Parts: sequence; structure tokens; C-alpha cells
Amino acid sequence: MSSQPLSPNNFSDLFDSVEAFLFDCDGVIWKGDELIQGVPQTLQMLRSKGKKIVFVTNNSWKSRSQYAQKFQSLGISVSQDEIFSSSFAAAMYLKVKDFPSQNKVYVIGGEGILEELRLAGITAFGGPEDANKTIDLKQNCFVEHDKSVGAVVVGIDPNINYYKLQYGTLCIRENPGCLFIATNRDAVGHMTALQEWPGAGCMVAAICGSTQKEPVVVGKPSTFMMEFLLKKFNVSCSKMCMVGDRLDTDILFGQNAGCKTLLVLSGVTTQSDLQDPSNNIQPDYYTNKISDMLDLS
Amino acid sequence: MSSQPLSPNNFSDLFDSVEAFLFDCDGVIWKGDELIQGVPQTLQMLRSKGKKIVFVTNNSWKSRSQYAQKFQSLGISVSQDEIFSSSFAAAMYLKVKDFPSQNKVYVIGGEGILEELRLAGITAFGGPEDANKTIDLKQNCFVEHDKSVGAVVVGIDPNINYYKLQYGTLCIRENPGCLFIATNRDAVGHMTALQEWPGAGCMVAAICGSTQKEPVVVGKPSTFMMEFLLKKFNVSCSKMCMVGDRLDTDILFGQNAGCKTLLVLSGVTTQSDLQDPSNNIQPDYYTNKISDMLDLS
Repeated sequence: MSSQPLSPNNFSDLFDSVEAFLFDCDGVIWKGDELIQGVPQTLQMLRSKGKKIVFVTNNSWKSRSQYAQKFQSLGISVSQDEIFSSSFAAAMYLKVKDFPSQNKVYVIGGEGILEELRLAGITAFGGPEDANKTIDLKQNCFVEHDKSVGAVVVGIDPNINYYKLQYGTLCIRENPGCLFIATNRDAVGHMTALQEWPGAGCMVAAICGSTQKEPVVVGKPSTFMMEFLLKKFNVSCSKMCMVGDRLDTDILFGQNAGCKTLLVLSGVTTQSDLQDPSNNIQPDYYTNKISDMLDLS
Repeated sequence: MSSQPLSPNNFSDLFDSVEAFLFDCDGVIWKGDELIQGVPQTLQMLRSKGKKIVFVTNNSWKSRSQYAQKFQSLGISVSQDEIFSSSFAAAMYLKVKDFPSQNKVYVIGGEGILEELRLAGITAFGGPEDANKTIDLKQNCFVEHDKSVGAVVVGIDPNINYYKLQYGTLCIRENPGCLFIATNRDAVGHMTALQEWPGAGCMVAAICGSTQKEPVVVGKPSTFMMEFLLKKFNVSCSKMCMVGDRLDTDILFGQNAGCKTLLVLSGVTTQSDLQDPSNNIQPDYYTNKISDMLDLS
């Protein structure tokens, strides 16, 4: 069924039937470090009408507390409990799988992943500390890897380099049973306000290319995080609405979880992407930006 | 049909029916900068028996003349005409496709690709000159890309970084009709003698991940290079034997082209890889290293 534009005719049906709005962040709340127009007022309106608000972000660069600080710095008050980031999801996945305490995790990605892993009591290394490591093949160099690494977590990493690719590849190829976990596989994202940049899907694919293995994906569109979300909020999935700018992560996640779905065109997806015959992911509704709800409410 | 180990019983059948031996380099002739045992004597024996010798390498880091120099430095005399590298294949692909002279090529890879493109009269940039470019997302930076780039060529690149990934992604996503060419998709290779390292398959997959497009592959197992090889050497494919250490590139290439195939276990493939039930690529013959032919001849 094709999507409906959000309008005065259908908005109250959606609004009245939804108890919790799940928002993606990049392309919905902000682009890079710039807030999208009307966001604070929209969130305020939703809270004033008693709606629960949750932020479900695939961007693993930050931890939940770092995201709460980012919201704060943009003038929006958000509790850490309202944030479900894919960095947190990676840590929760290892907890749920009873990751052995003597094993370590190698991280290709940001400080946020390391922070969430440490909060979960898991020993992790890599990430920013390997940002400046270089490889000179002419020196016949050898990368020695830690045999106790039992999982490699890969997320968005603007400091990607050949050392990290080699280290992660060695762990996955040579450590028996080593897990390969992707925070998400977004192709691109608004890492800055001015343009789109390669997302975690780029780094994850690189490791797929060198290991010839496929990862477990813990972020959207996987519904792994939903279990934790349901534990915090006593709302059934059918009374949730997932709001996002990406069809293949946000909208698919909402559909996989049985939520209502609203696509906003303020991020990576254009109306022509949505209506392209090759697209087979149709949200229930679409609109330009979340603040359109202000005019309709 | 499962492979036969090369033996006194079957060697003369192979040897007598073959006029040209096609050798892969990494893992067959050398590992990193170290020659594999017995290689010079084997090549000398083949030449003395009137066999033609060709080197077909997926490693795009060097140009044909740089490979000829590497052979020379290792004490082996090889003419540039005997070398078919995937860097050369990338340049020939663009020539065959009548790449417009006003368009440029962006390179993620080594100097060898740039050199072959220039020899073919094609304007190219990127590669080593972008090795040290850094991206600071906090500065809200913007990468401006050249709208006249009509092809992005991706090969092995130990200097891979986020700038190159962004530049290549922008060209492929935003320049209408921009080609995406992979020199090859080898997962790993012996970039040094001491261990395996992520190969071009890693960098190519990264760009697939960010662009959600699939490349044209010009190296093995694609038989694109065979057309040029046949032009140089007046030998039918059935009288050629492809000798390589990789099932999914070398042996598949040989089979795709209708050559006989010989797997050597001196590189990335082990005997247990070959005999694993999940492997469905069976060479005609296998042996430990090319110098085993010395004992059998």
C-alpha cells in the first residue's frame, strides 16, 4: 500500500492512536550539529499532550550519555533513559549472549561504543586510540593481534585506516568463534549539516569484504533494541510510531516491530526516492519534517 | 570433479598439452618482497622447454613497468609485455568503453593505476596524493568533488581513509553515469611475507557499502584481460594453464576462460580449504609450489 502524506484528514487518527513516538536523530532531529527547524517546539507539544518520546539512533559514534549532552547543548532536555543508540545495543547484545568476562572486544568505531561496553562491564579496546596508527608494508611489518578478542564491533568510523581493518580482520578470521557485530549498516548519513558522508555501512562492508563473513546487525532495521525499549516503557508496539528519514533502517525497523511509521523528508530520503518504482518500503505516512505536526495538532 | 595432486603420472599430460603458463604473482611467485623457493629455476626450465610465460596479477598497486622492475630486483628477467596487471586492465576497460577525453578518473588505490591510466591517455587523480588528507567532522567540513569525474577506479589501498571514501562516494552517487570499476575483489593477500592483509575486496566493498552500487570487476575472475592476452600470444585458451593460489580469482578465471588450472598451496589457500565440502571451485590439479614442476619434468 502506498504512503499517505500527513494531512489534517489523517493526522488525528495517527496522533490519537499513538502513545509513544520513536524518533531517529540524524536527519530528523538534527543534521550534523544543527537542529532541524521546529524540533524543540514539536517535542514540547508532544510531551504536553502526554506522549512518550524515545530516541532510537543508529549512529554509534556517541554513548547514550554523550547523546543526552548533545541534546542539552542544542537546548533540548532529554533523559539518558529516553535514548537507545546502536552503541548501547552492541553492548546489550554481548550481555544477552553472556559474552565471557575473560574475552575482549575490538572496536572499529567511536568512543561511544567503548563507553557503552565498559558500562556493561566488558573489556574493550581500539576505536579512537588506533586513529593514528599507520602501516608501512615496505617494512614487512606484522600486526600482532590479541587472541582473547571474542568480538569485533564495527560502527561509523571517520578515522578508519588500514591498521584497524587489518586488526579487525585478523580477529574475525583467526580467533575461533569471534563474533562480528555491526552497530548498523546505514550507507550514508548527515555527519555534517552540509553534506552526506559514508556511514557505518561503509566500514561494515569493508570488513565483510576482507573476512567474507556477514555481521550480526544490532541497530535498525533489526528489532533487537525493541526488547529493551519495551522493558522501559509500558506501551505496546502497535501504539508506537517510528519517525525516521531512512526507508531501509527506520521505516523497516518500525514495520518489523509492528509500529506505525512516519517518514520525514528532512534527511537522506527524497519524495522521489519514496515514490520510485524500485522502492518497496512504504511508510504509513510521510511529511517534510516533524514540526509539520505542530500545524496539524 | 575433484582435483588431482600433481604427480609423475599426470604431469606429462599437463605439460605436453600446454603452450603457455599463466602465473598469478602474490602467493605463487612471491610473498610480499620475498621470492617463493625455486621460482627462478622453474621459470628458467619452462622457458628452456619453449613454454610461453605470462604473469596475470590482480594486485593493482603497481603498473606493468613497476612489476617488471620488481621482477628484476628479485633477479628474474621479465618483459613488460609478459605482465597483465589489474591496473592495466582498468585502463584498458576505459579505453574499450571510449571513455570521454574530457572526463577524469578518481583513483582509490596505488600509483600503478594512475600510471596505467596516464599511459592510456586518461586524466586521473587521487591515489597516493590523497593519502594524508584528514576529515574533521566537528569543523562542519565539506568535500567539494569534481563533477567531470566519469569513473572511480578502486584497488588495494593501504592508505585508505575517510576522505578517499567520501570523494569516491560523492562521484559515484552524484555524477550522472559515473562508472564504478574494481581492479579486483581479493579478500586478503600477502602484502608482506609475514601475514595476510585486507585486499582490494575490502576497499571495493567499502564503496559498495556507501554507494549501494556494485562495481564492474576487470581483474580475475573476470576474463576481461584475456582478450588482450590473446592479442599478444597466439595460443588458444585450451593450451594455457592458469597457475594461482586463489580459488575464487585465479582458478575461477582459468575455468571461465577455458584454460587448464593448477592451484598452488604456497599462498592463501590451504589443502583443507580446497577439500572443504563448502568449496565448489576445483582446479584440474594442485601442488605445493610451482617448483614441484622441476622434480616432475
